[in-house]
Amino acid sequence: MAPSRPTDPHPHPGPDYDRLTAAVLETCDALACHSEVEGEINRPFLCPTTQQVHAVLSAWGARLGMTSWVDAAGNLHSRLPGTAPDAPTLYIGSHLDTVPNAGRYDGILGVVMGYALAEAFLETHGGPPPFATEVLGFSEEEGVRFGVPFIGSRTLTGSVDELLDLRDADGMSVREAIQAYGLSPDELPAAAAQDGALGYLEFHIEQGPVLQAAGAGLGVVEAIAGQNRLLLRFEGQSSHAGTTPMYLRRDALAAAARFAVEVEETARRTPGLVGTVGIMQAEPGAINVIPGAVQASLDLRHARDEVRKEALTHLLGALQGFCDERGVTVELTPKLEERATPMSESFRGLLHAAAEGLGLPHPELTSGAGHDAQIMAQKMPAAMLFLRTPNALSHHPDEAVEAVDVRDALRVGLRFLDGLVAGQGA
Amino acid sequence: MAPSRPTDPHPHPGPDYDRLTAAVLETCDALACHSEVEGEINRPFLCPTTQQVHAVLSAWGARLGMTSWVDAAGNLHSRLPGTAPDAPTLYIGSHLDTVPNAGRYDGILGVVMGYALAEAFLETHGGPPPFATEVLGFSEEEGVRFGVPFIGSRTLTGSVDELLDLRDADGMSVREAIQAYGLSPDELPAAAAQDGALGYLEFHIEQGPVLQAAGAGLGVVEAIAGQNRLLLRFEGQSSHAGTTPMYLRRDALAAAARFAVEVEETARRTPGLVGTVGIMQAEPGAINVIPGAVQASLDLRHARDEVRKEALTHLLGALQGFCDERGVTVELTPKLEERATPMSESFRGLLHAAAEGLGLPHPELTSGAGHDAQIMAQKMPAAMLFLRTPNALSHHPDEAVEAVDVRDALRVGLRFLDGLVAGQGA
Repeated sequence: MAPSRPTDPHPHPGPDYDRLTAAVLETCDALACHSEVEGEINRPFLCPTTQQVHAVLSAWGARLGMTSWVDAAGNLHSRLPGTAPDAPTLYIGSHLDTVPNAGRYDGILGVVMGYALAEAFLETHGGPPPFATEVLGFSEEEGVRFGVPFIGSRTLTGSVDELLDLRDADGMSVREAIQAYGLSPDELPAAAAQDGALGYLEFHIEQGPVLQAAGAGLGVVEAIAGQNRLLLRFEGQSSHAGTTPMYLRRDALAAAARFAVEVEETARRTPGLVGTVGIMQAEPGAINVIPGAVQASLDLRHARDEVRKEALTHLLGALQGFCDERGVTVELTPKLEERATPMSESFRGLLHAAAEGLGLPHPELTSGAGHDAQIMAQKMPAAMLFLRTPNALSHHPDEAVEAVDVRDALRVGLRFLDGLVAGQGA
Repeated sequence: MAPSRPTDPHPHPGPDYDRLTAAVLETCDALACHSEVEGEINRPFLCPTTQQVHAVLSAWGARLGMTSWVDAAGNLHSRLPGTAPDAPTLYIGSHLDTVPNAGRYDGILGVVMGYALAEAFLETHGGPPPFATEVLGFSEEEGVRFGVPFIGSRTLTGSVDELLDLRDADGMSVREAIQAYGLSPDELPAAAAQDGALGYLEFHIEQGPVLQAAGAGLGVVEAIAGQNRLLLRFEGQSSHAGTTPMYLRRDALAAAARFAVEVEETARRTPGLVGTVGIMQAEPGAINVIPGAVQASLDLRHARDEVRKEALTHLLGALQGFCDERGVTVELTPKLEERATPMSESFRGLLHAAAEGLGLPHPELTSGAGHDAQIMAQKMPAAMLFLRTPNALSHHPDEAVEAVDVRDALRVGLRFLDGLVAGQGA
C-alpha cells in the first residue's frame, strides 16, 4: 500500500507561468547572440562561444541551487539534488550545438525548459522533488562538424569511443577537438550516466507541420522513427530522343521516375510511413537525349521497424522489376539504417495524463527526425514532448515557437514531475 | 499511252559497285582529316577547313564533267547538265558541317553518295540523265555555331534572311560570318533553287536502332517527325523528409516523376510516338529533403501532327492534375515546335520499287531527327533513304556504316534514277 502523503500536490501557490515563459524565450534570445558567425546563429560542436552559452545557463542553475559542470565531451550538466539521499536521477535536456545559420530553438529550447521546469517545481513545492533533477545541454547532436550526430548523448550512454577518431573538415579528430577545448578524452567513461536513472525527458520543437495542421500546441512522441537511406544509381543507354523508338530504349530516367511514383504510392497507403526521393538527376541531362544514367536516393522512415522493412522489401522488389522491364540496371548504396526507438510507455502515459488534466489536446506523433532521446532511451525510460513549429520552419533563422505553447509545455512538464513524484512515492 | 522506249533500262554494263563503294568510304575517310580540331572531326559552319572539303568533292565532280561552285551561304554545288535543254533539276545532297567530335558519315555520306551515284549513272548509261543532276553539300545543318539548324538548305528555299542577324558565341553574326568567309550576303537570294525542280534525294545514316533491329540495311523515310520541346519548372515546398507526413507534402519531384511515367506510358501506347524526359533535376537535391523544385523537360515527336498534338494535349492535362493533386505548380517554357514533313509519295514509291526489284528489304520508318530534306520539301518533292547505323551510334567518333549498305544504297539509287528517267519520259 502507498504510504500516506499529501493529497494536494500543490501546497504552495502555482508558479508564475508568465514570468517563466518570458524567461525561457529571453534566454533563447540571449543564447542566440553567442555564435561563431556574426549575424547568424552558428555553434558547431566545441566551438569557443559554447562557453558563453554554458555561463548563461549555469548562472540560472546557480540561482536554483544547482551545481553545474562540463563533462569530458563538453556537455553541460546542472544538477539539483533530490530530497531522498539515494534517489535516482531524472534527466531533462536537449542539445546546444546548431546547424549553420540556424534558428534559436532547435535543441536549445529543450535545455532552457529544463531550468524553467526545475524553477517551476521549486516555486510550487518550496523544494526539490525526491529524485535528483539534472539538466543536460548536449554539446553535439546535429552531426555538422564530424558527419555523425549524437556525440553528446552517446557520451552519456557510453557509446562514444568509436567516434573519437573521426575527423572534421580541417583534419582534426574528435579526440583532438576535445583536448583543444581543454577537456580530457580519458575522462569520457566517467561522464556516462549511472545505471538505474529514473529517465530522460526532452522538450523539442516538432520541426514538422503535424501539430500545426492538427491545431494542437503540444504532442507526445510515440516513437522516433527508424530509417533507411540509400543512394540509387540507374544505368541504361543514352540515345537520341528522336531516332530511338520506345521499344528499343533503355531509359534510366523512366525506371527511376517509375520508382519514385512507387515510393510515393507505397508511403501514402501505409499509415505513418514517409518515403522520399530527394535526389534525382538525369544524365547527360539534355532535352533531346534519352537519359543513360540517373543518380537518385531513397529515404524511408516509420515508427515500427517491421512496417519500414516490409515497405523497403516491397520497394526494392518493385524497383528490380521497373529496371528489368527497361533494360536498366540499378546499384544500391545503403547510407544509413537505424532502428525505431519507442518512447517509454509510462512516461508517455504521464505526459498524456498531464495534458488531459489541463484540458489540452495531446496527440501522439512519430518523430521522423532523430533526437538525443533515441540515444538516451538505450539506457533509461525516455520521452519527448513536441512543441508546434509555425509553418514547419526549422534549421532556418526564422524558426519560431508560440509563447502559449512554451507556457503549456511548462504546465504539462510540472504535472509530469508531480506524476513522477507520485509514482516514485507509490 | 506511253511512247515506245527500250524495255531494258541498262543497255551498258552495270557500274563497278565494289569500286564505287570503296570510293565513297575512302572519300568519307579523306574528308574526316579536314577538321578545326586536331585528332577529332569538328567542322562548324563556314570554318576554314570547309574549303579543303569542297576541293576534294569538286575534283570528283570535275572528273564526271560537273561544274562546281560555292553559293553565298557556303553550300557546294556540283552540277551535271541533263541531255534535255530545259529539263528540271534533281538535287541529291546532305550537309558537310559536323557537331563537335563527330563521326565521319552524318551528312557527309549523303553528299559523297551524290557523286558516286552520278558516276554510277554515267558508267551505266554512257551519259547523263535527261534532267540535270546537282549534288548539294550544305554548309550548315547541325545548328552548332548559331543555335539554329538548316542555314544551308534554307538558302535553297529562300528562307534564310531571318537568320542573318543571329550571333555565334564570339558575337559574330551569320551575315558577318558569310563576309569573313569571302562571300556576299547580298547574293543569298540568287542561291535559292529555281521553282519547278524535279526534287531532292538525301541519303543519310539512320542515327537510330530501327533498321539494325529489323535486320534491314536500308529504309525509306515516310516522314520527318514533327516535334515539341518544352522545359518544365515544378515548384512545391522543400521540407524535412522525416518530419513531414505524406498528406502535408508539396513534393515537386513526386509530381515530376508521375509526369515522366505518363510520358512513357502515352508514347508506348501510341504507335510511332516517341516521348522523352531528358532533363530531371530535383532541388535542393539532398537525400533527406523533400524536393521543393524540379527542372525537367519534354521532347515529343510523331510523323503525324494530329497524333503529336493530341498526345501533347493529353500530357499537359494530366500534368496539371498531377500538380494540383500535390499542391505543386508547373511553369512551361516551349522551346521548339515543328510540324511533321511527309516525304514525297512518288519518290518513296520509286525507292520502294527499286529495293523490291533488287530483293532488298525496304521498311518505311519515321525520321525522328530533323534533316535538310524537311526544308527542301517546302519547295519540291523530297525523299530520304536511310542507311543502317551500327548500334545507333552517331554524333560520336565511332559512328559507322556497313559497306554492304553503301553498295545497296547505290544500287537502289541507280534504279531510283532510272525510274525517274522513265517517269520523266512517260
